[in-house]
Amino acid sequence: MDETLNSKKPEEGEQGGRPLRKPSFTNISGSAVEALYTAGNRSGSDYLRDEGFPGQFPYTRGVHASLYRGRPWTIRQFSGFGSAADSNTRFKFLLDQGQDGLSVAFDVPTLMGFDSDHPSSEGEVGVCGVAVDTLEDIEILFSGIPLDRISTSMTINAPAAVLLAMYLAMAEKRGVPWTALRGTLQNDILKEYIAQKEWICPPASALKFVADTVVFCTERVPQWNPVSISGYHIREAGATAAQELAFTLADGFAYVDACLAAGLAVDQFAARLSFFFNAHIDFFEEIAKFRAARRIWARHMRRRYGARSERSRMLRFHTQTAGCSLTAQQPENNIVRTAVEALSAVLGGTQSLHTNALDEAYALPSEQAARIAVRTQQIIAHETGVADTVDPLGGSYYVESLTDRLEEEAEAYFERIDALGGMVAAIEAGFPQREIMAAANRYQEEIENRDRIVTGVNEFVSPGDGDIETLRVDPRIEREQRDRLDSVRRRRNSLEADKALETLGAALRNGENLMPAMLEAVKAYATLGEIVGVLQEVHGLYEEPVVF
Amino acid sequence: MDETLNSKKPEEGEQGGRPLRKPSFTNISGSAVEALYTAGNRSGSDYLRDEGFPGQFPYTRGVHASLYRGRPWTIRQFSGFGSAADSNTRFKFLLDQGQDGLSVAFDVPTLMGFDSDHPSSEGEVGVCGVAVDTLEDIEILFSGIPLDRISTSMTINAPAAVLLAMYLAMAEKRGVPWTALRGTLQNDILKEYIAQKEWICPPASALKFVADTVVFCTERVPQWNPVSISGYHIREAGATAAQELAFTLADGFAYVDACLAAGLAVDQFAARLSFFFNAHIDFFEEIAKFRAARRIWARHMRRRYGARSERSRMLRFHTQTAGCSLTAQQPENNIVRTAVEALSAVLGGTQSLHTNALDEAYALPSEQAARIAVRTQQIIAHETGVADTVDPLGGSYYVESLTDRLEEEAEAYFERIDALGGMVAAIEAGFPQREIMAAANRYQEEIENRDRIVTGVNEFVSPGDGDIETLRVDPRIEREQRDRLDSVRRRRNSLEADKALETLGAALRNGENLMPAMLEAVKAYATLGEIVGVLQEVHGLYEEPVVF
Repeated sequence: MDETLNSKKPEEGEQGGRPLRKPSFTNISGSAVEALYTAGNRSGSDYLRDEGFPGQFPYTRGVHASLYRGRPWTIRQFSGFGSAADSNTRFKFLLDQGQDGLSVAFDVPTLMGFDSDHPSSEGEVGVCGVAVDTLEDIEILFSGIPLDRISTSMTINAPAAVLLAMYLAMAEKRGVPWTALRGTLQNDILKEYIAQKEWICPPASALKFVADTVVFCTERVPQWNPVSISGYHIREAGATAAQELAFTLADGFAYVDACLAAGLAVDQFAARLSFFFNAHIDFFEEIAKFRAARRIWARHMRRRYGARSERSRMLRFHTQTAGCSLTAQQPENNIVRTAVEALSAVLGGTQSLHTNALDEAYALPSEQAARIAVRTQQIIAHETGVADTVDPLGGSYYVESLTDRLEEEAEAYFERIDALGGMVAAIEAGFPQREIMAAANRYQEEIENRDRIVTGVNEFVSPGDGDIETLRVDPRIEREQRDRLDSVRRRRNSLEADKALETLGAALRNGENLMPAMLEAVKAYATLGEIVGVLQEVHGLYEEPVVF
Repeated sequence: MDETLNSKKPEEGEQGGRPLRKPSFTNISGSAVEALYTAGNRSGSDYLRDEGFPGQFPYTRGVHASLYRGRPWTIRQFSGFGSAADSNTRFKFLLDQGQDGLSVAFDVPTLMGFDSDHPSSEGEVGVCGVAVDTLEDIEILFSGIPLDRISTSMTINAPAAVLLAMYLAMAEKRGVPWTALRGTLQNDILKEYIAQKEWICPPASALKFVADTVVFCTERVPQWNPVSISGYHIREAGATAAQELAFTLADGFAYVDACLAAGLAVDQFAARLSFFFNAHIDFFEEIAKFRAARRIWARHMRRRYGARSERSRMLRFHTQTAGCSLTAQQPENNIVRTAVEALSAVLGGTQSLHTNALDEAYALPSEQAARIAVRTQQIIAHETGVADTVDPLGGSYYVESLTDRLEEEAEAYFERIDALGGMVAAIEAGFPQREIMAAANRYQEEIENRDRIVTGVNEFVSPGDGDIETLRVDPRIEREQRDRLDSVRRRRNSLEADKALETLGAALRNGENLMPAMLEAVKAYATLGEIVGVLQEVHGLYEEPVVF
């Protein structure tokens, strides 16, 4: 926009118009929001260089030319609770509701690598996800589900290799070839050190496990995405959109570096790295974040890593609406929040989507709540028309300007991370943790000072907030899960299990790829806790840096 | 976009990429949706001429420079049921929930000009709105509500002048000066002949009543908007977005012509004409419709009517989310639809908004449902960030291109209407009615053929759709309302009432402004039915043209 235009731009506020309702406008990330965006906010931009066509570098407008005109995003509801049998029933219910893929939630003991009878597991078995101790649980979990026709996402990190091995062993026993398996392993350990705090070994060792699974899948499970690099939990911990973007992509670069170090060429594996972002409540910043993520990844994969395959440069991602934006107060309001967030994910071009159930903030979703969440996606897909054209917000002065700004903010973080010696060193120094804590504190203060309104929490509070029916896990689950684990331990060939664990230890000490020995261990019905014990025996434990 | 860019535009579909999920993509209005929009879709556009800055001609980006940064839109829930006392209680509840203005729904007998004891009123009294027979009902309805601090919208058309007179008489009795009154009378009779079908007299006479109220308010009630030109019901009858836009604005032009004919100068009244649109489920087309409406109105007011005041050129509008998009099946899905629709209204720059309650498709909203509807607006206003910048979609290739297209389609309709001799002649010839019927039939066929999916209706049907608590009107209401009417008839001074009705008849026959005599009639507690009887005695009845 030239100067003539700028001179006609209206004044706002007390000088030139009505008074404003706030002295300044900032979004939930703390960034200033201007009254008006015009072409002037993007001077120097170039369509082909910065936006491009969908399906073409730098993929700002999307990774496919036809996007949802070809096929809508995958409805993928994260789900799992209680025993493997309970979760199997819920999976079948969700598939009947029109869901296209499974996404398995594991309970905290499983995420931490504890067996259900470990003292730390008490009270947690099957509570926030399904409990898995041995291959038998995985066999029950996927019973009757056609492994070659669905894709499966498994949200597990520290012990990701163990769960991957169980899934592969289960498929093998059912005669489904590994080449037919489609799915995603979260397997993003770096964000655990940053945000989620569920680890079993120090970062450098954990990175080696990730590289091993990538190498193994590259050779043997070619349709599987071995890492889903996750900003979700970083955002839930209180990060800004720019922090979510920067730290997630920086984690991604660290995995690329680790895989290159393990001897792979970038174009052998990069196409199967996928991402997982949060869709928070600030509508336009989120859309811009998704668009910026694609552009940044494409540019770095080309310039920094020399990726030549187009697929290696394409950032594909799953999205989950922001659990942290939901409220226990007036839970039906969460349907509204989730709908707006889901819409931002779709307008940002997500490949798959989890919409939170209205009661997800404080309970396991009821079937009714789970259904509304799925219907939210179906309404967006089939009724609102937003899936019928690609990147409908392309060209919006505001969205393009936000996209540019988020890219710049992420690049500034990359420089700081590089200066610290890369992401592992930055994490060990507590850098991303500190940045996120500062953002979380700022946000919390805004809520407390009522500079930021959360409906039903610090404003528009209703005294008679209705109770809704919620699903709680029966404490019997824990007892039964422990009994089942006991029974597996009694039925298995103990000598075989012990031998497999010894072989695993030797492989780890020799620096071999851990997957072959891991597969033998799970097939011998070694338990999760036993296997993790071997990993920790060889690689040690991890102590978190203190962050102020 | 130049040819170089076009040559790089990707092919889509079977030629160049993945197969598409449909042979062609059309929106709910039946218009083609392209795979991709770029600057190439807007060649020849000029920013200052076609978009401009908000607060500046042609107001495409909004009528205010600061828009919701100054003050968010008014939350205005259309509400009313049962007796005046019942509705008074609901109004106070809504004001307590943070609603800013009242919007009165009247029952069908009131809308048709029948008293509650008319034979045609049976079974309808207080069912879809509040029953009003005399000034006493209006006194009860607004009891304890500060008339000088809220704005009141009254959705009434054929007998609009009667209800306006009652409101003014009530204010006078309470000592509130008419100059302090803010509100809107729907008073849009033309759309009744097109869509809603509630009239009392032929179009030409009805147009005279409208002009009389505009003239009267211009002189005596300067903050009141005497006509709210309504596309809502046109859309609900099955019109496309372009038809809603074109027929509503054409109705607006007809009112302007009538007021000019009544001797007003355009800049005396045009600023207080307001509009009322539907926010249907096709997200982007709706946003574009609101933007196009502002631009078309501004251009016509300047070019066609020579309006010199900026305020005369500004189209301000109320929006209601689309009742016709809601489903009785799986009613919680309606929360999602309404949220998406409300978001489109806000992104389109609405001045006030009614969000439908989830059970509004088949019952009067329960308090719980009414609260969720209000919370939907509060979440959009305070949590999503979309109210913090003006016209965030400005510049979007898709939205700007849709805005251009809708303006063109509306202009094509204006030409056809002008060729028929203007809107009254077009209505008498059944032209808009026929166009809408064709659109409604096409849409219905798409649903029946499952070319268009409605979640829970022709796809994603759940057998166990839960029942929800709904509010139904007690049949006692009707008996009590008739008793109250009887009592007013007994208590009033009959001679005075008869004389006021005679005076009204004489004023009508003399072609005087009907408002002064109308005020005397309502103050004498003449009933709605008695007054409408006089109007019909003088101006005759209306028979609808047959539309094929």
